[in-house]
Amino acid sequence: MITHKTEVRVRYGEVDQMQFLYHAHYVDYFDVARTEFIRALGITNKEMEARGLMLPVINVNINYGIPANYDDLLTIHTTLKEMPGVKITFHYEVFRGEQKLTTGSVTLAFMDSATKRAIRPPQYMIDLFSPHFNK
Amino acid sequence: MITHKTEVRVRYGEVDQMQFLYHAHYVDYFDVARTEFIRALGITNKEMEARGLMLPVINVNINYGIPANYDDLLTIHTTLKEMPGVKITFHYEVFRGEQKLTTGSVTLAFMDSATKRAIRPPQYMIDLFSPHFNK
Amino acid sequence: MITHKTEVRVRYGEVDQMQFLYHAHYVDYFDVARTEFIRALGITNKEMEARGLMLPVINVNINYGIPANYDDLLTIHTTLKEMPGVKITFHYEVFRGEQKLTTGSVTLAFMDSATKRAIRPPQYMIDLFSPHFNK
Amino acid sequence: MITHKTEVRVRYGEVDQMQFLYHAHYVDYFDVARTEFIRALGITNKEMEARGLMLPVINVNINYGIPANYDDLLTIHTTLKEMPGVKITFHYEVFRGEQKLTTGSVTLAFMDSATKRAIRPPQYMIDLFSPHFNK
Repeated sequence: MITHKTEVRVRYGEVDQMQFLYHAHYVDYFDVARTEFIRALGITNKEMEARGLMLPVINVNINYGIPANYDDLLTIHTTLKEMPGVKITFHYEVFRGEQKLTTGSVTLAFMDSATKRAIRPPQYMIDLFSPHFNK
Repeated sequence: MITHKTEVRVRYGEVDQMQFLYHAHYVDYFDVARTEFIRALGITNKEMEARGLMLPVINVNINYGIPANYDDLLTIHTTLKEMPGVKITFHYEVFRGEQKLTTGSVTLAFMDSATKRAIRPPQYMIDLFSPHFNK
Repeated sequence: MITHKTEVRVRYGEVDQMQFLYHAHYVDYFDVARTEFIRALGITNKEMEARGLMLPVINVNINYGIPANYDDLLTIHTTLKEMPGVKITFHYEVFRGEQKLTTGSVTLAFMDSATKRAIRPPQYMIDLFSPHFNK
Repeated sequence: MITHKTEVRVRYGEVDQMQFLYHAHYVDYFDVARTEFIRALGITNKEMEARGLMLPVINVNINYGIPANYDDLLTIHTTLKEMPGVKITFHYEVFRGEQKLTTGSVTLAFMDSATKRAIRPPQYMIDLFSPHFNK
């Protein structure tokens, strides 16, 4: 299991007229958190794309609890619970201080950008993940 | 059961560098489709808000199949399968021509905007829904 | 001179907590209006990109007058006042009914997508524009 | 004169299919930079709104030079060149490392949120600005 924490501050244009962070923007924040998770692991999305790997999103699921507001500094806990196969699922918890606001998950597929076909994660990705899962 | 169809054209700024409609924007499109669904039913979100009703989103679930591209004219089929209780769930299917690209659902809660408490749908909403569900 | 009118309805997620259409989204709307302007002229942005033409934005200028609100149906008047050279400037007026809310302009450069160099508009573009400007 | 620097990292969903940061998002970034500028001055937008002050945007002007790409870490230099009157103009320069990519300005009006009328900046705002402009 790997967990990584990323901070995101709610922007003015992301808040709706209920004064709540508009619900679609959690998907953006999960993407930001995933980018930083991957960077902390030792590679960047950019490098993966340069090496011919695409990771299209195949499922998003979000449970909204307590709304966030403009200028809130949120902490997103991103967790990989299982060694990825052809799919990889990130689990998210969004906190404002100690208060858990929202949870969700995003599942992506490993894809060869040349053939546009689903593939198993390449060895350089397995080498990054496996120290966290193998005993 | 009630179904309503809405067209949305993919904007340039909504497409990512994979040349795909960025996955977060389906949430925006579902909101557009829901707005038009409600309007077709005989009331507007604006009127509901003016009457003290809020409908915060409590769950979003999206299964991504085939990606959409810039300038695609998409048709979103929005379906209400059950008479709403304290929650209301809209089911979505996104088509490009005959091709189904993506499916999803959004669940909202009926909330009194003064008390911020969950409520049953007010009678004027029930009157709009019930002709479609009662035999 | 060429003028084209496009309708855009304000989305829930585009409105801020002042209950106004968030000011950045006019830039999105101008892009939508430009896409439709070009389509009405007889070509699409997509076809231009396929023919190796890029049109990066080099200036945006917007004067905000009266704010727009959620669910407003806006009409955007897009005008080309001059025969384009290496640059092309679109002028915009945003109306809600008879009321003019906002004006602006966007200037783009013609660019060869292979060489990434500024170019004069290709002949097929000149042929589309010139009937509207030459006597 | 007051200058403040803010870092913003380009998000995946903010990049278009030319692989450039989509031009509308500079407006979002300028808003982020302005929020941090104000915070560094000793007050927050949130506190200003709570004290009955609104700052609607009345002009945006952006000159786009070199495009930014996904995952770029940009530094935005926000400068207030003059003591504000009924209007306040922020000047922006967007850098990637040493390279200046884009410049722009945003002008806002001071407005009383109760009366919705333009006002001079309240004394507590003048007290924050004036040490930087008065000898």
